[in-house]
Amino acid sequence: MKLTMRLGVRSYDIIIKRGVLKRVGQLVNLNRRVLVVSDTGVPKKYIKTILAQCGQGVPVVLPQGEESKSLARYGEVLGAMVEHGFTRGDAVLALGGGVVGDLAGFAAASYMRGVAFINCPTTTLSQIDSSIGGKTAINLNGVKNTVGAFYQPALVAADPDTLKTLPERHFVNGLAEAVKAGIIADEALFELFETEDVCENIEEIIYRSLVMKKNVVEQDERESGLRAVLNFGHTLGHAIESANHLGDLYHGECVALGMLPMIEQPSLRRRVRAVYKKLGLPSRIRYDGDAICEFIRHDKKAGADGMVTVVRAPRLGEARLDRLTMDELRAIVKEGVR
Amino acid sequence: MKLTMRLGVRSYDIIIKRGVLKRVGQLVNLNRRVLVVSDTGVPKKYIKTILAQCGQGVPVVLPQGEESKSLARYGEVLGAMVEHGFTRGDAVLALGGGVVGDLAGFAAASYMRGVAFINCPTTTLSQIDSSIGGKTAINLNGVKNTVGAFYQPALVAADPDTLKTLPERHFVNGLAEAVKAGIIADEALFELFETEDVCENIEEIIYRSLVMKKNVVEQDERESGLRAVLNFGHTLGHAIESANHLGDLYHGECVALGMLPMIEQPSLRRRVRAVYKKLGLPSRIRYDGDAICEFIRHDKKAGADGMVTVVRAPRLGEARLDRLTMDELRAIVKEGVR
Repeated sequence: MKLTMRLGVRSYDIIIKRGVLKRVGQLVNLNRRVLVVSDTGVPKKYIKTILAQCGQGVPVVLPQGEESKSLARYGEVLGAMVEHGFTRGDAVLALGGGVVGDLAGFAAASYMRGVAFINCPTTTLSQIDSSIGGKTAINLNGVKNTVGAFYQPALVAADPDTLKTLPERHFVNGLAEAVKAGIIADEALFELFETEDVCENIEEIIYRSLVMKKNVVEQDERESGLRAVLNFGHTLGHAIESANHLGDLYHGECVALGMLPMIEQPSLRRRVRAVYKKLGLPSRIRYDGDAICEFIRHDKKAGADGMVTVVRAPRLGEARLDRLTMDELRAIVKEGVR
Repeated sequence: MKLTMRLGVRSYDIIIKRGVLKRVGQLVNLNRRVLVVSDTGVPKKYIKTILAQCGQGVPVVLPQGEESKSLARYGEVLGAMVEHGFTRGDAVLALGGGVVGDLAGFAAASYMRGVAFINCPTTTLSQIDSSIGGKTAINLNGVKNTVGAFYQPALVAADPDTLKTLPERHFVNGLAEAVKAGIIADEALFELFETEDVCENIEEIIYRSLVMKKNVVEQDERESGLRAVLNFGHTLGHAIESANHLGDLYHGECVALGMLPMIEQPSLRRRVRAVYKKLGLPSRIRYDGDAICEFIRHDKKAGADGMVTVVRAPRLGEARLDRLTMDELRAIVKEGVR
């Protein structure tokens, strides 16, 4: 399956196909210096498969985990490009999940003010969501994605076969973003989760999720308005993730929990919980609602009027931006997830 | 005097006016968090003048010099923004020369993927050249400007009064870029250097230099072709700067020397030398031509064919891109500067 992100001169193709990892060199020029950025969680055979297609491949393997999205690792990646004499005509290829894609993408955006970026996502989360849209970033001083660039890849090649080597919980975690896509914009995708087997339909799930995101990004590349609907579940999810900083919940799991209170119809909320149970996503959590709201107030930088913007789903397939007072938010947050 | 850089949604005004430093807040919104980046060479009174106009001004003073264009300083500048809770609606203001502008501009380009950037250049070099055009960068592993972004400011406010506090040699150094503008594109500007007093005409010199650069940048924002003519004098100048790494020559002085062999008419070369003498720029240097050519071959990443592109001036007011063999380049380099 193929999609084209239409952004004028920054347009690019997104290929979702089993086995495409072996054919990336047929889709984009790899006959040059290519910095192949991956992490210790990516099976070595994938790295070998890519390097075999590169004219001059230079592998960089980061430690797995969010800690790699640092200024220091960013400097190391760029340093490798300097050391190997990369020029403006060379390329960076990300092979891994969201951390690898975000870091490698920002390095590609800034090395010599921009070289070609090729993204080969190998996790559910990155294939379904983070590999498209052009957001690249690193973390700084404990704040996620504070530093980065809007920078579109030249190609996204997602090989669903790579998902087979993911640990089960990691695989399921990424599906939360697809459930999100269904709730806010694609009834049929949501119903597919209710009625069909996920593994058998993974290509369609990825495809439909990306279609939703592509439509939003094409209308609002640099997040000046509409694109905020993609944050459905993320405002509260991010607060849960931070409150839960010992790390026993994954990002997608927190987003899944964060969506629930933002679903207005109790009947839809029940259906979403049933999907979570089927997939193995958490559907209930205990938290301190006041602490969560305090985090959101700080995180979303509520203005002098004390209001914050959240995304809510009035019914299946729809999303709406709401400006809420802290009291309104607190009522929603306290009611929703238990 | 006012110029408008016309780049669609990224258009911005360039104001060249004595005393404008006191009125920046009337030209752009400073009633927000503003990171005021300067260095130890910038008189404190200028910093105070700017801070007095800011809603919440946060001053950052870097050590003066090229060493500040580092990944570490970049991290410090961004860290200050995190610490003071900067949001997407806040701004970065550069107050200083090219180093400050390049670093602060890259920080503005990448903090939260881009906040407003205001450039108040206070040196001849930055007022005449580096403050416009949207190139921002830091150095990495000894390579200049390896990492950065094309990022246009929201406003450039150049106050020629600030040039009065520059050391004489520093003031003259920056004029080399204006002489360059005259040679490659503006006969009248060049003749102004021959016949008039520079200090009395500094506003017109800055203005005409910026008009030339603006015309080129508007046609080629991201340096895909034409913009290369702005490198006139820089290919050889950069080699001289590197060969001369103990630092007894300034950037503009090296560019001045680097232009001479690229001027084809001996009569024009004599006129340019006379201007250099009038201004106080160096007009002769001894160097090892073979070593200089070797540096250029490496610096310009000569292809398998061993050819490099240089900019030459066939006559006053014109520039041309030439593909040269190393032998051709060597003949030019050896002949020209002694």
